[in-house]
Amino acid sequence: MSASDAGRDTIDPEVVTRLTRELGPRVTSDVRALEETRADASGHLSPGPPVAIVAAESVADVQAALRVATATRTPVVTRGAGTGAAGAAIAGPGEIVLSTTRMDRILDVRPDDLLAVVEPGILNGDLNAVLAEQDLWWAPDPASRDISTVGGNIATGAGGLLCAKYGTVRDAVLGMDVVLADGRMMRLGRRSVKGVTGLDLTSLLIGSEGALAVIVSATLKLRRRPPGSPHTVLATFATVREAAAGAAAVVVSGVQPAIMELMDAASLGAVHALLGLPAPTAGAAQLTIQTDGAAAGAEAAAIDSILRALGAETTLSDDAAEGERLLTIRRSAHAAMTALGDTLLEDVAVPRSSLPAMFDEIGRIEREYGLTIPTIAHAGDGNLHPSFVFTGPEVPDEVWAAAGDLFTSALRLGGTLTGEHGVGLLKRRWLADELGEDQWELQRQIKQVFDPLGILNPGKVFGA
Amino acid sequence: MSASDAGRDTIDPEVVTRLTRELGPRVTSDVRALEETRADASGHLSPGPPVAIVAAESVADVQAALRVATATRTPVVTRGAGTGAAGAAIAGPGEIVLSTTRMDRILDVRPDDLLAVVEPGILNGDLNAVLAEQDLWWAPDPASRDISTVGGNIATGAGGLLCAKYGTVRDAVLGMDVVLADGRMMRLGRRSVKGVTGLDLTSLLIGSEGALAVIVSATLKLRRRPPGSPHTVLATFATVREAAAGAAAVVVSGVQPAIMELMDAASLGAVHALLGLPAPTAGAAQLTIQTDGAAAGAEAAAIDSILRALGAETTLSDDAAEGERLLTIRRSAHAAMTALGDTLLEDVAVPRSSLPAMFDEIGRIEREYGLTIPTIAHAGDGNLHPSFVFTGPEVPDEVWAAAGDLFTSALRLGGTLTGEHGVGLLKRRWLADELGEDQWELQRQIKQVFDPLGILNPGKVFGA
Repeated sequence: MSASDAGRDTIDPEVVTRLTRELGPRVTSDVRALEETRADASGHLSPGPPVAIVAAESVADVQAALRVATATRTPVVTRGAGTGAAGAAIAGPGEIVLSTTRMDRILDVRPDDLLAVVEPGILNGDLNAVLAEQDLWWAPDPASRDISTVGGNIATGAGGLLCAKYGTVRDAVLGMDVVLADGRMMRLGRRSVKGVTGLDLTSLLIGSEGALAVIVSATLKLRRRPPGSPHTVLATFATVREAAAGAAAVVVSGVQPAIMELMDAASLGAVHALLGLPAPTAGAAQLTIQTDGAAAGAEAAAIDSILRALGAETTLSDDAAEGERLLTIRRSAHAAMTALGDTLLEDVAVPRSSLPAMFDEIGRIEREYGLTIPTIAHAGDGNLHPSFVFTGPEVPDEVWAAAGDLFTSALRLGGTLTGEHGVGLLKRRWLADELGEDQWELQRQIKQVFDPLGILNPGKVFGA
Repeated sequence: MSASDAGRDTIDPEVVTRLTRELGPRVTSDVRALEETRADASGHLSPGPPVAIVAAESVADVQAALRVATATRTPVVTRGAGTGAAGAAIAGPGEIVLSTTRMDRILDVRPDDLLAVVEPGILNGDLNAVLAEQDLWWAPDPASRDISTVGGNIATGAGGLLCAKYGTVRDAVLGMDVVLADGRMMRLGRRSVKGVTGLDLTSLLIGSEGALAVIVSATLKLRRRPPGSPHTVLATFATVREAAAGAAAVVVSGVQPAIMELMDAASLGAVHALLGLPAPTAGAAQLTIQTDGAAAGAEAAAIDSILRALGAETTLSDDAAEGERLLTIRRSAHAAMTALGDTLLEDVAVPRSSLPAMFDEIGRIEREYGLTIPTIAHAGDGNLHPSFVFTGPEVPDEVWAAAGDLFTSALRLGGTLTGEHGVGLLKRRWLADELGEDQWELQRQIKQVFDPLGILNPGKVFGA
């Protein structure tokens, strides 16, 4: 199974001609540019380059490209910065890439309504830098925030470190303009924070991974930055199960951290090695917790007590710079995994009380498949990122078998295949396991309502 | 236009026989019970009674009823407590009422996962009474919370007084089990707080007003009650426009009240009359604001300063009982409106900065149509409830004309027809004005995917 399922063997020779007639220099068939669109952060590579890239600069460009795609029945892969972790924006033979990275303007910022209207191609980090000048904040903070686009964040329903307290993308979008497969523009949602007129298509589009329509602008729900500076608790436990139980105890207490990250011994060891720090105690796992807002100090103290009572060694800091230093270890995890070899970064989520049980399952899978699976977790919302490390261009079958076991375990615990990365190419074969056959079919029919010819990101999410 | 559009003139004589064969004593054709289902809190009355009520006690009952409805092509109106304000649960000739009020069990409460699984018929207030024993809270708090069901809250996407800080139903549901029109059960969402597997049908069902499927259980996202007791600010302004500007200034400040309610002079006068209080100053309008949580005192003081600087006379209280007494005036508004005569309670929402402009529009409509339109507003989220008062069983045409003007004004300001009540019967003729014809048609096609025979609440929301 690969991206070639999505493409076609025979390409209408007129496609590039027609695109160029409509869109002139916004169309490129530059070989190196085409090559780049074969991959994303998933490590997956499509079997070959797409036919062309349309670098849209306006809604009209998106509409023109989709009209040509509809007329010629050509598949379209919408792509932002290409930082996705599930292969949803990977393009292959026979496909047009519709790039939104040049549509990167901020169209409106309203401090009085706590909203911003932006084009999809703006980077999350760039947007937040501009918003910060007005003491405003779009809370979604995927780890990729400095290199990923807002449109991509919305298309994947992205999460991040701050979700437990501040929600995901799903909680931070009021509306959006989309272009349908046939080129018609449609305005979803509204600028008011409440509204229940008709079906909530804004929510339906969030996380739809390019399969329903192309997002050409979004009305974002903003917040004020919480007052004061964060307090940080670093807690070290003898085992990962105890660290997971500690995180669960914090959830039960009702104290709401802004950040609660867990690192197991293998990921902690890899980061220490990468950063040249002394090796951590064998088997030890760590929680890095931050509280913020008016009650940050009291909340950090309460969390510290809870974790010490459970046997953790803790460090408590009210210094923002020291907190950022402590978080650096967690933020270096992705780089440390990559340094270990080729990786399949997984993304299951479970109910928060099941975090210890999920770590038991990961331990079992490590033993049964003879693998080491370094794992970090957004422990505040039960979202785990186990990394499967291997060598070579393709994920080995035994790694997929172990990953399949991981998914099944998460589902058995009431969780999900993917907490924040999406289905894309990588998890489509497990999609029906989670949804059930009936729902899988119903979702496909909803896709057909939006995209009757099946030209939007075919083979992704619902692909066979 | 009335509910009769939804029913049919000829009823399959076998429907009641078949229902009774499958469901025995759960089927009633008691005349008084049938009569009650012709109305809800909207003041609208269907042209005649439905054919039968199925009082489902289990998922299997719901499935059996829907299988009969499908086999006989009989329309089904799902109904909870009948407290809706838009006519979505009103039943008429030729229709089956599927009542969920007997499905009122709490199936699971998990303090460690901050979730509860409940059947749809439990009352919001009853659920929260049970949850409070474990220091848990389902935050959605429509004014009807003591008499409305959780299933109805979800089906309408209900709001309430606390939305600005704690969100609406949309922010408080992790998943649900639904039965499709043909009787198949489908499990949507999950028990983990994060998850992006496939399209977000849980969100799509929220606010779908019985048109897509029947909700038979819901997995609710809970919170801990905020610590401490609330602080209350009562602020009186010379005019409603100044009160609206005061509310907008609080939003801009970034201080987040839990409750921020606005009452204009007419609604304030009506409540004072109802409660036997001295008449308020002519033309004066009021904001009632509560802050809660760890910073409640500091936040109330900050809000008090902001509003005094804008010319308000304020009262500040840190006493919970006194706060509840001050809120009683606002909580009596609905009763006071009803005491004035027959009412059409409206529900537009606008971006928060447009609240003063929306009150200008209401003033213009009052003058142009020769009406008094007492208005209260959830000012923290820009949601206004203007009341049109009249005499008689039917809303007069001139009131509908004024209401239509109100809707158009809200849309022009970037808002919506309905912030929290839904479309139902009452607003279907304006639905396409907000959605646009293309989106209206696309939403209807999505309904057809769920309900190809069109038997679920026909004539509501998308009805002509």
